[in-house]
Amino acid sequence: MTASPLTLDDVHAAARRLRGRIHRTPVIACQSFDDASGYRVFFKCENLQRAGAFKIRGALNKLLTLAPAARARGVVAYSSGNHAQGVALAARMVGTSAVICMPTDAPALKLEATKNYGAEVVFYDRQKDDRAAVARKIVEETGRVLVPPYDDYAIMAGQGTAALELFQEVPSLDVLLTPVGGGGLMAGCSTVAKSLFPGIAVIGVEADTANDTYLSLQKGERVTIPPPPTIADGIRVTSPGALTFPILQKNLTDMSLVNDAEIVVAVRFLALRARLVVEPTGAVGAAAVLAGKLPVARGARVGVVLSGGNIDPALLVEILQAK
Amino acid sequence: MTASPLTLDDVHAAARRLRGRIHRTPVIACQSFDDASGYRVFFKCENLQRAGAFKIRGALNKLLTLAPAARARGVVAYSSGNHAQGVALAARMVGTSAVICMPTDAPALKLEATKNYGAEVVFYDRQKDDRAAVARKIVEETGRVLVPPYDDYAIMAGQGTAALELFQEVPSLDVLLTPVGGGGLMAGCSTVAKSLFPGIAVIGVEADTANDTYLSLQKGERVTIPPPPTIADGIRVTSPGALTFPILQKNLTDMSLVNDAEIVVAVRFLALRARLVVEPTGAVGAAAVLAGKLPVARGARVGVVLSGGNIDPALLVEILQAK
Repeated sequence: MTASPLTLDDVHAAARRLRGRIHRTPVIACQSFDDASGYRVFFKCENLQRAGAFKIRGALNKLLTLAPAARARGVVAYSSGNHAQGVALAARMVGTSAVICMPTDAPALKLEATKNYGAEVVFYDRQKDDRAAVARKIVEETGRVLVPPYDDYAIMAGQGTAALELFQEVPSLDVLLTPVGGGGLMAGCSTVAKSLFPGIAVIGVEADTANDTYLSLQKGERVTIPPPPTIADGIRVTSPGALTFPILQKNLTDMSLVNDAEIVVAVRFLALRARLVVEPTGAVGAAAVLAGKLPVARGARVGVVLSGGNIDPALLVEILQAK
Repeated sequence: MTASPLTLDDVHAAARRLRGRIHRTPVIACQSFDDASGYRVFFKCENLQRAGAFKIRGALNKLLTLAPAARARGVVAYSSGNHAQGVALAARMVGTSAVICMPTDAPALKLEATKNYGAEVVFYDRQKDDRAAVARKIVEETGRVLVPPYDDYAIMAGQGTAALELFQEVPSLDVLLTPVGGGGLMAGCSTVAKSLFPGIAVIGVEADTANDTYLSLQKGERVTIPPPPTIADGIRVTSPGALTFPILQKNLTDMSLVNDAEIVVAVRFLALRARLVVEPTGAVGAAAVLAGKLPVARGARVGVVLSGGNIDPALLVEILQAK
């Protein structure tokens, strides 16, 4: 067995870089959620993070590890939304410029916020274009540095700081849940979890139509699926990352799949009972717990990363009105 | 000058009683709120408190100070909503029973939650009945102990623990804002603020149609207004308390009044940009800041108690759809 290319030390180093620059987000318990689910749940509220999602952790860590000359050339990123905002804000924080490639159907709120952070936005078609290729072209033409959404160890280490903070506050968890899109958040968080608590169950959550990591883990190799239609726009990813996947293979205890109806119930419950605005992607972990989909006995102490809170008002209204 | 009947020591004693029984709620900063308002704001998130509001602090402190025999007889309370839930939950926590007098037009969610905590609900007409008299009748007939919504030093001391926690986390505030209904929250919080930081500006916030405390402070004596129509249902109070008012007179630097439109803007901003669900009453402090109504120069460091998050889904939808 080879040593992991991502270590707890990398995450500690990222935490030192990020300290004082972004929020140490609160960990929140909600009695009515526990009553409804039968678990003892601790929510790590990355919906309350700067730019409304955990993405600033990885993006800022990446930018802070660049050599000054590289950083000064500016950055480029592709993203369905939250990574876009994270990179745009991180670029502003370190005083460089950002070009963000966003899908034409990106949520209006995420598009607007990205522009507000001062980034230039370039659009691509999610059904036709290869977004990585669009970004690479910009890199070649401009010399900007690519900030990948997940397949990068500095990104993963940054995202892992969310779990580090969660465990510092609640060191006695039986289970850790995070959403799985490209796998950056889970690669970082699972590395922290398994390093600190080898016996902990680490469970990734995907939307059932965006089950590329689930299928890949079953097959033992990376599988590519068609662009998935799930309401969870942040994890509409077609395959796990080349670098994240081996880390997930090593660390994950299991996967859990939730459907859009279960996600809607969770978003609604979190808004009205936990008083937290969480976007569909951010709520998939809560959805798995609430829908009884955890392969873990009731009563377990479960850490759930609520990964983001950037939801279009119209969608939030629709979800609040859902019966 | 006579010594205050409510002291910092009372609040410290309440904090010791409450420790581990309720949430130490997070203090949250929101860059976009600061950008929009021109202030540096720290939100004390009592919307994330147990039962969704600060009220459990006072109610539980009160119940924990009762002699066991009195406590065993059960309690009674009257409330437009959050105090009802606070007392109902506090009663359940200490193993006694609660009867709650609620207005016939209480928000459905607050009514439901009060019943769910195991309390018996008795209705009164907010336009016609004297709610205190309704509750006193129950006290006389049953021997239950009245838990007043605000005009009680144990209640005020409990509510003050919110400010104590806020100052422990952010000791360098220039201003403290809380909503003012009957004055219990503000009596407790202002006592903490002025004891720890004599130079701090303490500003109470009322809805402009529920300006009984504003008028009372101007006149130098308690004024009674007609039942106010404001959207902020938790502060539809017609006069400040007999016991709270002298404390507010002593401690308050100023009052700020906000209208319903400003409250709606604040609730919407908090939900979509700070990702916090806050009820209209809970948002009046944020509304005053956002609407530029603070009699304090921009740039000041402002602590704002977001007092509760119990909002009917239909109203939240309406507010999210407001333009």
